[in-house]
Amino acid sequence: MPTPAEYLTQHDARIHDELFDFLRIPSVSARGEHKPDVARAAEWLRANMERAGLTTSVHETAGHPIVLGEWRGAGSTAPTILVYGHYDVQPAEPLELWHSPPFEPTIRDGNIYARGSVDDKGQLFLHVKAIEAHLATRGTLPCNVILLAEGEEEVGSANLTPFVSAHAERLKCDGVVISDSAMFAPGQPSLLSSLRGIAYFQIDLEGPTSDLHSGSYGGAVVNPAMALARILATFHDADGHIAIPGFYDAVQSWDDSTRAQIRALPFDEEHFRAETGADKLGGESGYSVLERIWTRPTCEVNGLLSGYTGEGAKTVLPSKAMAKVSCRLVPDQTPEAIGALIEAHIRRVAPPGVRVTVRLLQGGMPWRGDLRGPLFEAGRTAMQAAFGRAPVITGEGGSIPVVHDFKQVLGAPVLLMGFGLPGENAHAPNEWMSDENFIKGMQAASAFWDAMRP
Amino acid sequence: MPTPAEYLTQHDARIHDELFDFLRIPSVSARGEHKPDVARAAEWLRANMERAGLTTSVHETAGHPIVLGEWRGAGSTAPTILVYGHYDVQPAEPLELWHSPPFEPTIRDGNIYARGSVDDKGQLFLHVKAIEAHLATRGTLPCNVILLAEGEEEVGSANLTPFVSAHAERLKCDGVVISDSAMFAPGQPSLLSSLRGIAYFQIDLEGPTSDLHSGSYGGAVVNPAMALARILATFHDADGHIAIPGFYDAVQSWDDSTRAQIRALPFDEEHFRAETGADKLGGESGYSVLERIWTRPTCEVNGLLSGYTGEGAKTVLPSKAMAKVSCRLVPDQTPEAIGALIEAHIRRVAPPGVRVTVRLLQGGMPWRGDLRGPLFEAGRTAMQAAFGRAPVITGEGGSIPVVHDFKQVLGAPVLLMGFGLPGENAHAPNEWMSDENFIKGMQAASAFWDAMRP
Repeated sequence: MPTPAEYLTQHDARIHDELFDFLRIPSVSARGEHKPDVARAAEWLRANMERAGLTTSVHETAGHPIVLGEWRGAGSTAPTILVYGHYDVQPAEPLELWHSPPFEPTIRDGNIYARGSVDDKGQLFLHVKAIEAHLATRGTLPCNVILLAEGEEEVGSANLTPFVSAHAERLKCDGVVISDSAMFAPGQPSLLSSLRGIAYFQIDLEGPTSDLHSGSYGGAVVNPAMALARILATFHDADGHIAIPGFYDAVQSWDDSTRAQIRALPFDEEHFRAETGADKLGGESGYSVLERIWTRPTCEVNGLLSGYTGEGAKTVLPSKAMAKVSCRLVPDQTPEAIGALIEAHIRRVAPPGVRVTVRLLQGGMPWRGDLRGPLFEAGRTAMQAAFGRAPVITGEGGSIPVVHDFKQVLGAPVLLMGFGLPGENAHAPNEWMSDENFIKGMQAASAFWDAMRP
Repeated sequence: MPTPAEYLTQHDARIHDELFDFLRIPSVSARGEHKPDVARAAEWLRANMERAGLTTSVHETAGHPIVLGEWRGAGSTAPTILVYGHYDVQPAEPLELWHSPPFEPTIRDGNIYARGSVDDKGQLFLHVKAIEAHLATRGTLPCNVILLAEGEEEVGSANLTPFVSAHAERLKCDGVVISDSAMFAPGQPSLLSSLRGIAYFQIDLEGPTSDLHSGSYGGAVVNPAMALARILATFHDADGHIAIPGFYDAVQSWDDSTRAQIRALPFDEEHFRAETGADKLGGESGYSVLERIWTRPTCEVNGLLSGYTGEGAKTVLPSKAMAKVSCRLVPDQTPEAIGALIEAHIRRVAPPGVRVTVRLLQGGMPWRGDLRGPLFEAGRTAMQAAFGRAPVITGEGGSIPVVHDFKQVLGAPVLLMGFGLPGENAHAPNEWMSDENFIKGMQAASAFWDAMRP
């Protein structure tokens, strides 16, 4: 009988075929027209998990379904570990920038290109296969396992925490494992110590009832697009600090030890800049790039729309202007408090002559972990086993809002072992996951169960 | 034999049918896909002008064709009058805001609703019918007539002035008549004394090569959408003055007599505000609303586009941001000089980390007329005859760049007698022309020829 690690190697071709089938389903949670695809991805995942040896169920929510897989064979004295991931993906637009179709996975240069490859289908699926490997070879696992996959992570996980709260007894566990983040560098495994939260807003300005002729009215009517630009320009000062009054009040400064660890990492700023393609990096003065991304809050425009945006010239004074703006949050900021500050600030600076509405589209709490105890040690051992190198401790600029909620509702520690890489285009065209990391990720996930053996 | 005025009344139903056929052709000059429709509108107009008794020709240009109609029966000692108009129209989008389809003309509440009804097909067509009325009833006109209709007015008339220059001998005339503007108020005919020019730009900012994950990169990369907002916010000061250095240097102040005439007009500011639907008017401090629109230059955003603008939340840090910005110009500003000032200003204030391009999409010179002489007197008489009331002298915030060029190239005075009305949505959904003004406009155009009789 092969070991779980050998099983994964022997079944590599089939496992890749299955992953590609999973990636072909355009489970875009943000778009109403993809609702059937999201449901199809949930059912595909459930069936795959069932074949892996888990007892599965699909739970409808007010939004997209939650898929649950359980294996309770370790007995009531063994610990229970909950593995969380998400099977929904970001919208793929703009499609014309993809070098291969977003929902037709393609391996190029050792990377799997597809929307959802790294965020998060690939990283979720490697856990399913690691569990399958243990159950197929040894018939058992050292822990009871709950695998929970949601379909709304990319739209704010509105129904997940209510589900977890409603099923707190069933989901009771001693630790939560999540793979939905990136390693520090190729070959350098990492464990995450912090995540930023998020507060995502849509700001709508309305001026005239309809678009006006910019000649007949221009100069005498407040232009909503210009008013929006003037509002957005007040969000930062010249040094890149956020100038919304009260914005930093709840921000906890990072301890010296963590700042020292961050500074000690071999961060290649020039490589990071080249990766973005921007001429020059920017941001808040007084902080290194990694500190800006991991430890400091942001306020970024995600989208702008107003007036005429087609070919050529159309001389309208727009009726409306819209901005999507999101803040990444750090402890102890909350989406609600930041939302209230932003709305109050906008009302203070908006000119008369435009009506402003601010809607919070998505909110998630920031998180900082306590990196001690058996769960964290098993993670460290598993990473060492799969990559031959001890993991470093990193932060993450992105948000996995449910991490905070898992800790809050289930009272269990959370281990974040991610297998993405910098530059993976997680929310952009040409998203990819390193195939090597997918394979080593399965090995690490498998080694994690070994390391959990008492 | 009826008089020309009686002829127009007797043929009213057929004339309306013809106008509606003309309005049904979606001759949107800004959109490549409508090129065949623009050509169809040119041919339709040519055929109609031929039936009116003019000798017609269609002249291809590098863009859309120019339609010419000539009647030279008055003899070489009689004056020659050139009537100019345009048969192209603005794009109709956003379509969902139209109460009836833009290219299916509909009369509601005494107004003809259709894209192009007032700008400028209706106002061009009434001249064709007035000429037809004279030739059909009297078989002659007191002047030689050239009717010149272009198909590129809404995209900057790039090929018109070269055409006029190339055919300067054939187009030699003693006066130019244009109906492409609005009356001061219903029942109050007007003659226009000034037009603003235009300089229309597209500003493109590029930062990262592709959209980035706003969590993984946000705070460390210059956001092109935020940079664009900060650039646009420098265009005005808090008092609504344009803050681009040098912008006002070429602006000639209006003489006291014209300012006194403008102030004497019975302008209803509250009605103007209600018409726009905005809560409150805005603009440059120190000037009345009419002065802002007629005598002062502007700098307005016409469109904004960046990042994700669809449904829901997508956490991208955009790769690009675009603004369409247009300035209305007053004598002696020029599009080229203003373009140079704006580009220099943007380069001065743009942050490092974004690449900026500024393209002049459209330029047109401002104009001020000399309201004396036989052409102007004939216009005054014609308006008095059709509306029973002497015209007032007004300005116009919009641009008809060719007016400056006609004066320049042909050396002839220009008479602007418009039949639009305030609130006609010329460049917006639900464009309309008062049917009464269309009918009285034909009578005025007909009376103009009577008034030109020596």
